[in-house]
Amino acid sequence: MAELIRTEEYPIYIGNDSLEALSAYFKLNTFSSCFILLDEHTAKYCLPILLDQVPFLAAAKVIVINSGEINKTLATCTHIWEELTAGGAGRKSILVNLGGGVITDMGGFAAKTYKRGIHFVNVPTTLLSQVDASIGGKLGVDFNGFKNHIGLFGYPNIICINAAFLKSLPSREIKSGFAEVIKHALIQDKIYWEAIQYITDVSEMEWNSCITRSVGVKKKVVDQDPFENGIRKALNFGHTLGHAFETYLLNTEQHLLHGEAVALGMIIEAYLSNKKGLLSDSDLQSIVSFIIQIYGKANIEGYDWNQLLACMGQDKKNVSNKISFTLLNGIGDVVIDQHFETAAIIEAVEYYQSL
Amino acid sequence: MAELIRTEEYPIYIGNDSLEALSAYFKLNTFSSCFILLDEHTAKYCLPILLDQVPFLAAAKVIVINSGEINKTLATCTHIWEELTAGGAGRKSILVNLGGGVITDMGGFAAKTYKRGIHFVNVPTTLLSQVDASIGGKLGVDFNGFKNHIGLFGYPNIICINAAFLKSLPSREIKSGFAEVIKHALIQDKIYWEAIQYITDVSEMEWNSCITRSVGVKKKVVDQDPFENGIRKALNFGHTLGHAFETYLLNTEQHLLHGEAVALGMIIEAYLSNKKGLLSDSDLQSIVSFIIQIYGKANIEGYDWNQLLACMGQDKKNVSNKISFTLLNGIGDVVIDQHFETAAIIEAVEYYQSL
Repeated sequence: MAELIRTEEYPIYIGNDSLEALSAYFKLNTFSSCFILLDEHTAKYCLPILLDQVPFLAAAKVIVINSGEINKTLATCTHIWEELTAGGAGRKSILVNLGGGVITDMGGFAAKTYKRGIHFVNVPTTLLSQVDASIGGKLGVDFNGFKNHIGLFGYPNIICINAAFLKSLPSREIKSGFAEVIKHALIQDKIYWEAIQYITDVSEMEWNSCITRSVGVKKKVVDQDPFENGIRKALNFGHTLGHAFETYLLNTEQHLLHGEAVALGMIIEAYLSNKKGLLSDSDLQSIVSFIIQIYGKANIEGYDWNQLLACMGQDKKNVSNKISFTLLNGIGDVVIDQHFETAAIIEAVEYYQSL
Repeated sequence: MAELIRTEEYPIYIGNDSLEALSAYFKLNTFSSCFILLDEHTAKYCLPILLDQVPFLAAAKVIVINSGEINKTLATCTHIWEELTAGGAGRKSILVNLGGGVITDMGGFAAKTYKRGIHFVNVPTTLLSQVDASIGGKLGVDFNGFKNHIGLFGYPNIICINAAFLKSLPSREIKSGFAEVIKHALIQDKIYWEAIQYITDVSEMEWNSCITRSVGVKKKVVDQDPFENGIRKALNFGHTLGHAFETYLLNTEQHLLHGEAVALGMIIEAYLSNKKGLLSDSDLQSIVSFIIQIYGKANIEGYDWNQLLACMGQDKKNVSNKISFTLLNGIGDVVIDQHFETAAIIEAVEYYQSL
């Protein structure tokens, strides 16, 4: 049976038979019309699996967008709103988001703002969206180069996570998603951190248990602080500098996938944790070794410091223009709202470059 | 002292000294930065009053948009997001919406979606926004000709209503707003309906008590059903056909202000109420006489029935493509979710034309 994580707002089903739960959901609930949002990849690799296991959806109208973070824009969102309008979607309609974080974030935003909100369901198909993006209610689009700059908090009716979708993913995508698994272990699950130390090849993972453990950490944190006024910032570990490098490199040849940027960010922010006396030298060393072993070193040569700083300055978690970091307080614990002088941040980036 | 209506989410101050409450609010609360959204009219006539009574706002950054429903678009909203971004707005920033329904609806939407939500305050300056639009949490923009098609529910931190702003309004705008006062009386306040029968010149009203009574009706209905699953549809009286004509005539020379369209819609929907046996002939007659005396007859000659029907088909309150009406069940009461065959709706529109 699919693992069931019941949250206050919505149930999350994880496992090989999680789509049966979705099928049952459509038998139990009536909607005036049904839409599926997907991109060219999920149309090809994931839609057949979905339709096979949820035959009810054969009658749904399909909305296709181009894949990739670069298309997570208001323009694409406008296309989704236009398709919903053309398809006669009303308040009792439902949108099924079938794809990675771009699809679940943007589809959720489009649904919650169409006619002041219609229903939606998340069927995340990448590891990143299965362990992170599809959980927790952050919805939105990028705006003028700033990630998730326009958005809101909102929840799907149900989330169905099936590792079968991962088989179609390139290994670079799987590794990218695995960065959030590492982060979840580092911020709250020391035992799991020790367990994954033995992994040398991410493609050999047993995903159902890994996803369940990782979703458990994310949910526990989000439930304590849904609107990110405090402890939810724990999830931001690795993301202050990770987001900044991801944004900064977005339209360059060195561009990084989200998890690759977070992997880089976790090393730099682990260094800052060590510098502040919160993380031992040996823990820093074990984090650096494990991440470099899986991801190698990102190419950040010749970056412009002021532009990078500007990218950090737009982070939503900042208050009063101070740049906030979440640091590790040993492995398995964090401290939030930590600040550094510019010189210390530069030193930490240089540490990464020296590796 | 300003009248205070305390709702679960936010306080509403009404009266000549309501802006003192706003001034006190800014003394009690700290924001990282402050923005004022206005249009060329409120910049000229209302900003001086606001700054005079709330000196704290002298340091606020001003965002100016062009006035009018025609500018209640994603493009204008994008401009607001860009100005917030350029001004370094963060989660602890606040936006003061100074204007009519376009400003409070769109400014609220822009605020609630910027970085997943910043604070906002409503200072409505038209009668329509003071008695209706600024209250109740419906935020959004028009989209491809459909009114408020993209939006969400969200609440300001505080609403300050001051009738002094009305002095700068053309009488056509005042009369437009008065249509919602009439509606509030008709749907829930028979005594007030009888009181306003003696009005022949809207410009002679004593606004503070009128606004307080009207806001009271609106709030009472909204509090019972904030997300419009049921009784909030009471407020839709006059709006099914009103909205449709407003949308249909939007870019023509016959275009109607919102309240003018609602006045027309209330006559047609009062006729439908009478046809269904819910409203007596004499009550229908008194409604028609009063509205025509104030608004005259709108020019709807030569309208295209199919296009009008298409405009009704996009109404957000419709379920399963049936067009829903809210009808009067006598004066002071309503029934929601009423449906008619197309022929009956045509007959009602023809009744209006025959007046």
